[in-house]
Amino acid sequence: MREAELIQKISKGAAKSSFGRHAELLGIGDDAALWKPRPGHEVILSCDWFLEGTHFLRDKHPPDAVGWKALARALSDIAAMGGAPVCFLLALALPTDLTGRWLDAFLGGMGRAARKFSCPLVGGDTTRRSEVLINLTVIGQIASRRALLRSGARPGHSLFVSGRLGEAELGLWLLRKFGRIPSRGKSRAFLSKHLYPEPRLALGRWLAEQRLASAMIDLSDGLSTDLPRLCASSNVGARIEAAKIPTVRMALSMPERSPDSLELALHGGDDYELLFSVPAKKVPQVPRSYGGVRITRIGEVTKPGSIVLVDRNGCELPFANRGWDPFRET
Amino acid sequence: MREAELIQKISKGAAKSSFGRHAELLGIGDDAALWKPRPGHEVILSCDWFLEGTHFLRDKHPPDAVGWKALARALSDIAAMGGAPVCFLLALALPTDLTGRWLDAFLGGMGRAARKFSCPLVGGDTTRRSEVLINLTVIGQIASRRALLRSGARPGHSLFVSGRLGEAELGLWLLRKFGRIPSRGKSRAFLSKHLYPEPRLALGRWLAEQRLASAMIDLSDGLSTDLPRLCASSNVGARIEAAKIPTVRMALSMPERSPDSLELALHGGDDYELLFSVPAKKVPQVPRSYGGVRITRIGEVTKPGSIVLVDRNGCELPFANRGWDPFRET
Repeated sequence: MREAELIQKISKGAAKSSFGRHAELLGIGDDAALWKPRPGHEVILSCDWFLEGTHFLRDKHPPDAVGWKALARALSDIAAMGGAPVCFLLALALPTDLTGRWLDAFLGGMGRAARKFSCPLVGGDTTRRSEVLINLTVIGQIASRRALLRSGARPGHSLFVSGRLGEAELGLWLLRKFGRIPSRGKSRAFLSKHLYPEPRLALGRWLAEQRLASAMIDLSDGLSTDLPRLCASSNVGARIEAAKIPTVRMALSMPERSPDSLELALHGGDDYELLFSVPAKKVPQVPRSYGGVRITRIGEVTKPGSIVLVDRNGCELPFANRGWDPFRET
Repeated sequence: MREAELIQKISKGAAKSSFGRHAELLGIGDDAALWKPRPGHEVILSCDWFLEGTHFLRDKHPPDAVGWKALARALSDIAAMGGAPVCFLLALALPTDLTGRWLDAFLGGMGRAARKFSCPLVGGDTTRRSEVLINLTVIGQIASRRALLRSGARPGHSLFVSGRLGEAELGLWLLRKFGRIPSRGKSRAFLSKHLYPEPRLALGRWLAEQRLASAMIDLSDGLSTDLPRLCASSNVGARIEAAKIPTVRMALSMPERSPDSLELALHGGDDYELLFSVPAKKVPQVPRSYGGVRITRIGEVTKPGSIVLVDRNGCELPFANRGWDPFRET
């Protein structure tokens, strides 16, 4: 296969799954993609590595899930700003022997995500490599001055999270332990959250439109890593109630010595849920769920200094930053 | 070094070289970058791999040149559309032992290019990897409906190229042959074109503003690869006069058995010159040079069918597509 054929295959896959061209977009086939933004809007830009061996394993993760997840996790950054997706660029390096069925399945999964989240592929770059390397650039837009930054949290604001935390990490643990995907049951749900995460785009957009949140971040590396990031940007501290964190509900049939649910919720990566702060007077407007996704108050923003985790008795538990960090020596 | 420190280092390097924040830009430090486009303009989007072993060699290419070239070559796609750079995202994976001096020099070279081409760094992604992996996304803008596509060439239009073709390939050949960078002389000029290419942004923008060109592409993979791309997009053929192609001027002191200058010009990659078509009635308006860069008419656009290379006697020479293709079996 020559590069031109590969680009044609990707382009055809994009068109077939109707995640190719848009009326306002010039896509694959020129030196660059062109797009006309909506007047009065700002452009949101983000890129994400998704590398074999680091972010996924070729022998454990189905190519369909690799394609889906590569786009879904990149779009989580658009969700975290409160924006709407516009389009994406795919930089793909892969071995020649994966340009057949593996690539078809990969493009299939990516195409399903592109349709689901209304985000067409408009360009990219391809090359040959012994390992699969993926870098996705996602482009979004949002009405001017409505973007939800990490820096807007103030002491007294309440802290909320969407969904349940730690499910994706438990899914990865199950995949590692059993080495295959169960056909049904609770395990499959956890695994699905690990393989096919859903960025909280609708919730993020709604929070920005309603001006409910004062600051927001997506939980990609774990609460214990991402909460300190939000606190540092806002120059605040936080007090989190351990009992209020929405942890995974373990099934009775769960294998023994499965990981602790609080540990999973604090340090598990890949959840792609939203963590956001809300000023006290707007807290009553926050619903218990939005679009089927639960919303839970887990604590409050405090003065700068420390991030504290408290148990039911008011005793402080350690809140160590132990989420995902590719540069940590293990 | 932890990821946060690495991001801080990149962010500081960006600020120091004043290629960090812009008045209208929210840069590094949030979930995504934000940018407000100019009204009446379209957004140009492109991304480019720059991988150790494929696009550069860690033991041959100075980190300063790796940083410069990664940005310069990505910006060539903005030049090829006739646009102006806005900002870029840097996705960088590297081994921990390169986060010191190597990274400093890399960021230095990238910072110089960012200042030179007015294109600030606004975000990206970092991770650890045994080899250096770089993916750059560049964002540009251009007044609506002024972008120069590959698809606008028509039979009878003249074909022009900027600069001289094959210089970068000769520079790479010299680097491979002698394994080091000469301190002066003609060789150094060729090497400089290989290590520190300059995207033809000013020329590209001028051609779009003056509405002189009907189609344009940048020569990244070699004339013999990129001309067929332009012809395919425009559904036309071409007739190129070999004697008119601006080839490298070999120095007298050149080593024997150095490559043929026409071969270099046809198949050499990495020139980042512009190839563009101009309607007959506008040809007299094309200057002999623009901003110190020579502009040469090399042939004309013909009816669809074939791309022909002719010598001084009108004899046809082979015009085989032998430029850079990462998927070609060698």
